[in-house]
Amino acid sequence: MPAPGPESVERVFDGTRISVEVEHWPGGARREIVRHPGATAAVVRLGDRVVLVRQLREAVRRVLLEVPAGTRDVPGESPEETIRREIREETGYLATRLEQLGSILTTPGFTDERIELYVAWVEDPPGPPEEEGIEVAVVPFAEAVAMAEDGRIEDAKSVAALLLLARRTEADAAP
Amino acid sequence: MPAPGPESVERVFDGTRISVEVEHWPGGARREIVRHPGATAAVVRLGDRVVLVRQLREAVRRVLLEVPAGTRDVPGESPEETIRREIREETGYLATRLEQLGSILTTPGFTDERIELYVAWVEDPPGPPEEEGIEVAVVPFAEAVAMAEDGRIEDAKSVAALLLLARRTEADAAP
Repeated sequence: MPAPGPESVERVFDGTRISVEVEHWPGGARREIVRHPGATAAVVRLGDRVVLVRQLREAVRRVLLEVPAGTRDVPGESPEETIRREIREETGYLATRLEQLGSILTTPGFTDERIELYVAWVEDPPGPPEEEGIEVAVVPFAEAVAMAEDGRIEDAKSVAALLLLARRTEADAAP
Repeated sequence: MPAPGPESVERVFDGTRISVEVEHWPGGARREIVRHPGATAAVVRLGDRVVLVRQLREAVRRVLLEVPAGTRDVPGESPEETIRREIREETGYLATRLEQLGSILTTPGFTDERIELYVAWVEDPPGPPEEEGIEVAVVPFAEAVAMAEDGRIEDAKSVAALLLLARRTEADAAP
Protein backbone atom coordinates (compact mmCIF):
# COMPACT_ATOMS: atom_id res chain seq x y z
CA MET A 1 0.00 0.00 0.00
CA PRO A 2 1.65 3.29 -1.03
CA ALA A 3 1.93 5.75 1.82
CA PRO A 4 1.31 9.44 1.32
CA GLY A 5 4.03 11.79 2.41
CA PRO A 6 4.19 14.44 5.12
CA GLU A 7 2.97 17.98 4.53
CA SER A 8 5.99 19.42 6.28
CA VAL A 9 9.29 18.23 7.69
CA GLU A 10 11.32 20.18 10.23
CA ARG A 11 14.85 19.03 11.10
CA VAL A 12 15.17 19.62 14.85
CA PHE A 13 18.46 17.79 15.54
CA ASP A 14 21.35 16.98 13.26
CA GLY A 15 23.80 14.62 14.92
CA THR A 16 26.71 12.51 13.77
CA ARG A 17 24.82 9.21 14.07
CA ILE A 18 21.15 10.17 14.13
CA SER A 19 19.02 13.12 13.16
CA VAL A 20 15.53 14.00 14.31
CA GLU A 21 12.66 15.39 12.25
CA VAL A 22 9.21 16.58 13.22
CA GLU A 23 6.76 15.76 10.45
CA HIS A 24 3.19 16.93 10.01
CA TRP A 25 1.03 14.46 8.06
CA PRO A 26 -2.29 14.91 6.25
CA GLY A 27 -5.09 14.51 8.79
CA GLY A 28 -3.17 16.33 11.49
CA ALA A 29 -0.75 13.71 12.82
CA ARG A 30 2.52 15.10 14.20
CA ARG A 31 5.39 12.61 14.27
CA GLU A 32 8.81 12.85 15.92
CA ILE A 33 11.08 10.67 13.80
CA VAL A 34 14.68 9.58 14.30
CA ARG A 35 16.52 9.16 11.01
CA HIS A 36 19.23 6.48 11.12
CA PRO A 37 21.55 5.15 8.37
CA GLY A 38 20.68 1.51 9.18
CA ALA A 39 22.83 -1.27 10.56
CA THR A 40 23.94 -4.86 10.15
CA ALA A 41 24.19 -7.71 12.66
CA ALA A 42 25.19 -11.36 12.53
CA VAL A 43 24.94 -14.57 14.46
CA VAL A 44 28.60 -15.57 14.23
CA ARG A 45 28.95 -19.36 14.15
CA LEU A 46 32.15 -21.02 15.33
CA GLY A 47 31.22 -24.67 14.91
CA ASP A 48 28.44 -25.42 17.40
CA ARG A 49 29.18 -22.22 19.27
CA VAL A 50 28.48 -18.53 18.62
CA VAL A 51 30.66 -15.48 19.15
CA LEU A 52 28.91 -12.76 21.16
CA VAL A 53 30.11 -9.37 22.37
CA ARG A 54 29.67 -7.63 25.69
CA GLN A 55 29.86 -3.86 25.78
CA LEU A 56 28.67 -0.82 27.67
CA ARG A 57 25.51 0.59 26.12
CA GLU A 58 25.51 4.13 27.39
CA ALA A 59 21.84 4.64 26.44
CA VAL A 60 20.75 2.10 29.05
CA ARG A 61 23.71 2.60 31.45
CA ARG A 62 24.51 -1.10 31.32
CA VAL A 63 26.79 -3.70 29.79
CA LEU A 64 24.80 -5.83 27.34
CA LEU A 65 25.48 -9.17 25.65
CA GLU A 66 24.70 -8.95 21.92
CA VAL A 67 25.53 -10.41 18.54
CA PRO A 68 28.24 -8.48 16.66
CA ALA A 69 26.76 -5.54 14.76
CA GLY A 70 27.58 -2.21 13.24
CA THR A 71 26.04 0.90 11.81
CA ARG A 72 26.11 1.42 8.06
CA ASP A 73 28.08 4.62 8.34
CA VAL A 74 30.78 4.06 5.71
CA PRO A 75 29.71 5.59 2.38
CA GLY A 76 29.71 3.08 -0.48
CA GLU A 77 30.07 0.02 1.75
CA SER A 78 27.55 -2.79 1.16
CA PRO A 79 25.82 -4.33 4.21
CA GLU A 80 27.81 -7.53 3.62
CA GLU A 81 31.08 -5.57 3.71
CA THR A 82 29.94 -3.73 6.82
CA ILE A 83 29.13 -6.87 8.80
CA ARG A 84 32.36 -8.61 7.74
CA ARG A 85 34.33 -5.57 8.88
CA GLU A 86 32.44 -5.28 12.14
CA ILE A 87 32.90 -8.97 12.97
CA ARG A 88 36.64 -8.61 12.41
CA GLU A 89 36.92 -5.37 14.37
CA GLU A 90 34.76 -6.47 17.29
CA THR A 91 35.81 -10.13 17.65
CA GLY A 92 39.01 -10.61 15.63
CA TYR A 93 37.39 -13.40 13.57
CA LEU A 94 37.30 -13.46 9.77
CA ALA A 95 33.99 -14.51 8.22
CA THR A 96 34.53 -17.32 5.70
CA ARG A 97 30.87 -17.49 4.69
CA LEU A 98 27.89 -15.19 5.06
CA GLU A 99 24.18 -15.92 4.59
CA GLN A 100 21.18 -13.61 4.84
CA LEU A 101 18.94 -14.32 7.80
CA GLY A 102 16.38 -11.52 7.64
CA SER A 103 15.83 -7.81 7.97
CA ILE A 104 14.12 -5.95 10.81
CA LEU A 105 12.83 -2.47 11.53
CA THR A 106 14.00 -1.92 15.10
CA THR A 107 11.19 0.32 16.31
CA PRO A 108 9.18 1.82 13.45
CA GLY A 109 6.97 3.89 15.74
CA PHE A 110 9.73 6.49 15.83
CA THR A 111 12.70 5.52 13.66
CA ASP A 112 13.46 4.28 10.15
CA GLU A 113 16.40 2.19 11.38
CA ARG A 114 16.61 -1.13 9.54
CA ILE A 115 19.05 -3.87 10.54
CA GLU A 116 20.13 -6.47 8.00
CA LEU A 117 20.61 -9.81 9.78
CA TYR A 118 23.13 -12.45 8.72
CA VAL A 119 24.64 -15.74 9.76
CA ALA A 120 28.43 -15.67 9.50
CA TRP A 121 30.73 -18.65 9.78
CA VAL A 122 34.17 -18.14 11.29
CA GLU A 123 37.10 -20.38 12.23
CA ASP A 124 39.76 -20.48 14.91
CA PRO A 125 42.16 -18.91 15.53
CA PRO A 126 40.92 -15.32 15.57
CA GLY A 127 43.18 -12.32 15.13
CA PRO A 128 43.29 -9.61 17.77
CA PRO A 129 40.04 -7.60 18.16
CA GLU A 130 40.51 -3.99 17.09
CA GLU A 131 37.89 -2.25 19.22
CA GLU A 132 38.46 -1.25 22.80
CA GLY A 133 35.79 -1.79 25.41
CA ILE A 134 34.34 -4.90 23.78
CA GLU A 135 34.63 -8.29 25.47
CA VAL A 136 34.23 -11.40 23.32
CA ALA A 137 32.16 -14.32 24.66
CA VAL A 138 32.02 -17.68 22.88
CA VAL A 139 29.06 -19.79 24.02
CA PRO A 140 27.23 -22.87 22.71
CA PHE A 141 24.56 -21.92 20.16
CA ALA A 142 21.85 -23.63 22.21
CA GLU A 143 22.92 -21.60 25.26
CA ALA A 144 22.73 -18.33 23.31
CA VAL A 145 19.21 -19.24 22.18
CA ALA A 146 18.28 -20.01 25.79
CA MET A 147 19.68 -16.59 26.77
CA ALA A 148 17.45 -14.92 24.18
CA GLU A 149 14.48 -16.80 25.61
CA ASP A 150 15.07 -16.16 29.30
CA GLY A 151 16.11 -12.50 29.16
CA ARG A 152 19.86 -12.78 29.61
CA ILE A 153 20.00 -11.36 26.09
CA GLU A 154 17.60 -8.39 25.87
CA ASP A 155 18.78 -6.65 22.70
CA ALA A 156 16.03 -7.01 20.10
CA LYS A 157 18.26 -7.60 17.05
CA SER A 158 20.13 -10.33 18.95
CA VAL A 159 16.90 -12.00 20.10
CA ALA A 160 15.43 -11.88 16.60
CA ALA A 161 18.59 -13.12 14.89
CA LEU A 162 19.19 -16.00 17.32
CA LEU A 163 15.57 -17.18 17.23
CA LEU A 164 15.40 -16.90 13.43
CA LEU A 165 18.53 -19.02 13.12
CA ALA A 166 17.26 -21.52 15.69
CA ARG A 167 14.11 -22.04 13.61
CA ARG A 168 16.09 -22.38 10.40
CA THR A 169 18.53 -24.82 12.00
CA GLU A 170 15.73 -26.92 13.47
CA ALA A 171 13.86 -26.93 10.15
CA ASP A 172 17.03 -28.19 8.44
CA ALA A 173 17.44 -30.90 11.07
CA ALA A 174 13.81 -32.06 10.92
CA PRO A 175 13.23 -35.51 9.39
CA MET B 1 28.77 -4.80 35.93
CA PRO B 2 27.93 -1.31 37.20
CA ALA B 3 28.19 1.31 34.49
CA PRO B 4 29.72 4.67 35.19
CA GLY B 5 27.69 7.71 34.30
CA PRO B 6 28.23 10.47 31.77
CA GLU B 7 30.31 13.52 32.56
CA SER B 8 27.78 15.80 30.92
CA VAL B 9 24.28 15.57 29.47
CA GLU B 10 22.84 18.13 27.09
CA ARG B 11 19.15 17.98 26.19
CA VAL B 12 19.02 18.87 22.48
CA PHE B 13 15.38 18.00 21.69
CA ASP B 14 12.37 17.80 23.96
CA GLY B 15 9.42 16.26 22.13
CA THR B 16 6.03 14.91 23.20
CA ARG B 17 7.03 11.26 22.67
CA ILE B 18 10.81 11.24 22.64
CA SER B 19 13.63 13.49 23.76
CA VAL B 20 17.25 13.51 22.65
CA GLU B 21 20.35 13.98 24.77
CA VAL B 22 23.99 14.31 23.85
CA GLU B 23 26.13 12.72 26.53
CA HIS B 24 29.88 12.91 27.02
CA TRP B 25 31.33 9.87 28.78
CA PRO B 26 34.62 9.32 30.61
CA GLY B 27 37.25 8.39 28.02
CA GLY B 28 35.86 10.81 25.46
CA ALA B 29 32.87 8.98 23.98
CA ARG B 30 30.08 11.24 22.73
CA ARG B 31 26.67 9.56 22.52
CA GLU B 32 23.45 10.77 20.92
CA ILE B 33 20.68 9.11 22.92
CA VAL B 34 16.93 9.04 22.38
CA ARG B 35 15.00 8.88 25.66
CA HIS B 36 11.71 7.00 25.39
CA PRO B 37 9.10 6.13 28.06
CA GLY B 38 9.01 2.46 27.02
CA ALA B 39 6.24 0.41 25.48
CA THR B 40 4.24 -2.80 25.68
CA ALA B 41 3.30 -5.32 22.99
CA ALA B 42 1.40 -8.60 22.89
CA VAL B 43 0.83 -11.64 20.77
CA VAL B 44 -2.97 -11.69 20.96
CA ARG B 45 -4.28 -15.25 20.81
CA LEU B 46 -7.79 -15.97 19.55
CA GLY B 47 -7.84 -19.75 19.73
CA ASP B 48 -5.33 -21.02 17.17
CA ARG B 49 -5.18 -17.62 15.51
CA VAL B 50 -3.57 -14.29 16.40
CA VAL B 51 -4.89 -10.76 16.08
CA LEU B 52 -2.49 -8.44 14.23
CA VAL B 53 -2.78 -4.79 13.26
CA ARG B 54 -1.89 -3.03 10.05
CA GLN B 55 -1.10 0.68 10.19
CA LEU B 56 0.84 3.43 8.49
CA ARG B 57 4.24 3.88 10.09
CA GLU B 58 5.17 7.38 9.06
CA ALA B 59 8.84 6.87 10.00
CA VAL B 60 9.26 4.30 7.22
CA ARG B 61 6.54 5.70 4.92
CA ARG B 62 4.82 2.31 4.80
CA VAL B 63 1.95 0.30 6.17
CA LEU B 64 3.29 -2.43 8.48
CA LEU B 65 1.78 -5.57 9.96
CA GLU B 66 2.56 -5.81 13.67
CA VAL B 67 1.37 -7.21 16.96
CA PRO B 68 -0.78 -4.78 18.99
CA ALA B 69 1.38 -2.45 21.06
CA GLY B 70 1.44 0.87 22.78
CA THR B 71 3.70 3.40 24.40
CA ARG B 72 3.74 3.67 28.19
CA ASP B 73 2.65 7.29 28.12
CA VAL B 74 -0.12 7.27 30.74
CA PRO B 75 1.28 8.26 34.16
CA GLY B 76 0.61 5.65 36.85
CA GLU B 77 -0.49 2.93 34.43
CA SER B 78 1.21 -0.46 34.81
CA PRO B 79 2.53 -2.19 31.65
CA GLU B 80 -0.23 -4.81 32.04
CA GLU B 81 -2.88 -2.08 32.13
CA THR B 82 -1.28 -0.39 29.12
CA ILE B 83 -1.29 -3.50 26.95
CA ARG B 84 -4.87 -4.42 27.94
CA ARG B 85 -6.00 -0.91 27.00
CA GLU B 86 -4.05 -0.91 23.73
CA ILE B 87 -5.45 -4.30 22.69
CA ARG B 88 -8.98 -3.02 23.32
CA GLU B 89 -8.39 0.30 21.54
CA GLU B 90 -6.56 -1.14 18.54
CA THR B 91 -8.52 -4.37 17.97
CA GLY B 92 -11.75 -4.15 19.98
CA TYR B 93 -10.91 -7.38 21.84
CA LEU B 94 -10.87 -7.68 25.63
CA ALA B 95 -7.96 -9.66 27.07
CA THR B 96 -9.23 -12.38 29.42
CA ARG B 97 -5.74 -13.56 30.37
CA LEU B 98 -2.25 -12.07 30.14
CA GLU B 99 1.14 -13.76 30.53
CA GLN B 100 4.64 -12.29 30.41
CA LEU B 101 6.65 -13.35 27.39
CA GLY B 102 9.83 -11.31 27.70
CA SER B 103 11.32 -7.85 27.60
CA ILE B 104 13.47 -6.32 24.87
CA LEU B 105 15.61 -3.25 24.37
CA THR B 106 14.65 -2.19 20.86
CA THR B 107 17.96 -0.68 19.76
CA PRO B 108 20.26 0.09 22.68
CA GLY B 109 22.93 1.66 20.50
CA PHE B 110 20.93 4.88 20.60
CA THR B 111 17.80 4.57 22.74
CA ASP B 112 16.71 3.35 26.17
CA GLU B 113 13.35 2.16 24.84
CA ARG B 114 12.28 -1.11 26.46
CA ILE B 115 9.23 -3.06 25.31
CA GLU B 116 7.50 -5.46 27.69
CA LEU B 117 6.19 -8.45 25.71
CA TYR B 118 3.07 -10.42 26.62
CA VAL B 119 0.79 -13.13 25.38
CA ALA B 120 -2.86 -12.13 25.68
CA TRP B 121 -5.87 -14.40 25.22
CA VAL B 122 -9.06 -12.93 23.79
CA GLU B 123 -12.43 -14.29 22.72
CA ASP B 124 -15.00 -13.52 20.07
CA PRO B 125 -16.92 -11.36 19.58
CA PRO B 126 -14.79 -8.20 19.75
CA GLY B 127 -16.22 -4.78 20.40
CA PRO B 128 -15.59 -1.97 17.96
CA PRO B 129 -11.96 -0.83 17.67
CA GLU B 130 -11.49 2.70 18.96
CA GLU B 131 -8.49 3.85 16.91
CA GLU B 132 -8.76 5.20 13.41
CA GLY B 133 -6.29 4.17 10.76
CA ILE B 134 -5.70 0.69 12.17
CA GLU B 135 -6.84 -2.39 10.27
CA VAL B 136 -7.25 -5.64 12.22
CA ALA B 137 -6.00 -8.89 10.67
CA VAL B 138 -6.74 -12.29 12.22
CA VAL B 139 -4.41 -15.00 10.93
CA PRO B 140 -3.44 -18.55 12.01
CA PHE B 141 -0.65 -18.45 14.61
CA ALA B 142 1.57 -20.67 12.42
CA GLU B 143 1.07 -18.25 9.53
CA ALA B 144 2.08 -15.26 11.68
CA VAL B 145 5.25 -17.11 12.72
CA ALA B 146 5.97 -17.86 9.05
CA MET B 147 5.50 -14.14 8.31
CA ALA B 148 8.07 -13.27 10.99
CA GLU B 149 10.47 -15.76 9.41
CA ASP B 150 10.08 -14.74 5.77
CA GLY B 151 10.02 -10.95 6.16
CA ARG B 152 6.32 -10.22 5.72
CA ILE B 153 6.52 -9.06 9.33
CA GLU B 154 9.60 -6.82 9.74
CA ASP B 155 8.88 -5.03 13.00
CA ALA B 156 11.42 -6.26 15.55
CA LYS B 157 9.09 -6.46 18.58
CA SER B 158 6.61 -8.49 16.52
CA VAL B 159 9.32 -10.85 15.23
CA ALA B 160 10.74 -11.33 18.73
CA ALA B 161 7.35 -11.83 20.37
CA LEU B 162 6.04 -14.30 17.77
CA LEU B 163 9.24 -16.38 17.76
CA LEU B 164 9.45 -16.38 21.56
CA LEU B 165 5.87 -17.64 21.77
CA ALA B 166 6.49 -20.22 19.03
CA ARG B 167 9.38 -21.68 21.05
CA ARG B 168 7.35 -21.70 24.25
CA THR B 169 4.38 -23.33 22.52
CA GLU B 170 6.56 -25.97 20.88
CA ALA B 171 8.35 -26.67 24.17
CA ASP B 172 4.94 -27.19 25.85
CA ALA B 173 3.88 -29.53 23.05
CA ALA B 174 7.10 -31.57 23.08
CA PRO B 175 6.77 -35.18 24.32
